[in-house]
Amino acid sequence: MEEIKVDEKEALACCGSSQFAKQMALASPFPSVDHAISVAKDIWFNKVDVIGWLEAFAAHPQIGESPSSHTTSAQWSKGEQSTALATATDSGLQELSDWNARYRQKFGHVFLICASGRSAAEILGELKNRYSNRPIHELEIASQEQMKITELRLRKLFSAKTKADSTGSQYSTAVASKAESTFHFPFCLLHLLPLPFLPP
Amino acid sequence: MEEIKVDEKEALACCGSSQFAKQMALASPFPSVDHAISVAKDIWFNKVDVIGWLEAFAAHPQIGESPSSHTTSAQWSKGEQSTALATATDSGLQELSDWNARYRQKFGHVFLICASGRSAAEILGELKNRYSNRPIHELEIASQEQMKITELRLRKLFSAKTKADSTGSQYSTAVASKAESTFHFPFCLLHLLPLPFLPP
Repeated sequence: MEEIKVDEKEALACCGSSQFAKQMALASPFPSVDHAISVAKDIWFNKVDVIGWLEAFAAHPQIGESPSSHTTSAQWSKGEQSTALATATDSGLQELSDWNARYRQKFGHVFLICASGRSAAEILGELKNRYSNRPIHELEIASQEQMKITELRLRKLFSAKTKADSTGSQYSTAVASKAESTFHFPFCLLHLLPLPFLPP
Repeated sequence: MEEIKVDEKEALACCGSSQFAKQMALASPFPSVDHAISVAKDIWFNKVDVIGWLEAFAAHPQIGESPSSHTTSAQWSKGEQSTALATATDSGLQELSDWNARYRQKFGHVFLICASGRSAAEILGELKNRYSNRPIHELEIASQEQMKITELRLRKLFSAKTKADSTGSQYSTAVASKAESTFHFPFCLLHLLPLPFLPP
């Protein structure tokens, strides 16, 4: 199987740290997605500094903000947030928004969680639990959640690139085209919910 | 014994995080220096976020930079760096400077150590050892070293304020006056060496 190239822009869509993106591009091409994820974990946990971690967290939009629909990251994020939104009531969303603001006030960065299969209520419970953590402990948890998001996105990226190669189309065009047809959620929980996309 | 007041500017001279300084000033006055240190530890480790930690680290000058001689923090720092400099050779200082640059390149913040009683060679050894740490681990160690520096400075502050009270003079004037007579080191190791001041 041909090795897969990942450029800096593509890596940045998987994880918004410029240090991460540069080092992933330098390590490219990769013989498999599993190898790319292994390299990504080493870069993220051992080489990217805490300022780079904060940069990646900051690349996730705030609750209530609508992301640009023109980036791959924003498109992936929109797909990732659907399940929890489908299980959320209006009051639940408001409470999530309020707690997210409290969390950001205490920790200085957004609440990150990989919530695959979890309801909005479960995510809110997790947010409340983690709120009592020391900032350094919470930073480490958030970095682990960011890596889970990065891993899911790398798998999407490799899958899209492999498909594009087999059909002869351009990967970036395929992603953009799919993205334009996705539903625009009124609330943006991009930093909360890396979930499979299920249109409401 | 009368309670001792600490204002925001004084707290900032002990630890360059504005969050820390605001919360210390709000918790002031203190019945004793030990109580102030206990409150400072709670604020620093449990309430100041990692952005505040990085702000405090950044308040320490780089090796080779000369700090302003007009701040209390700079004056205290000058006193804190003397012992290691007294034990350092020119080549040792150069190696320390080189490794400090490598450290900053990897971790994104200055190398912090409370090196009381340690020689320059021992400090360099510690820097080399810590260089292999993961960034999150190193952040936690640096935060502990910053707290040791903060504790020493709070003790100096309380001692100076108590003396000023007993002589009827102004604390800030007393510190500034002492500061003007200190030797200006050619290399600034302020972030390395919170040591008692021993004029060369």
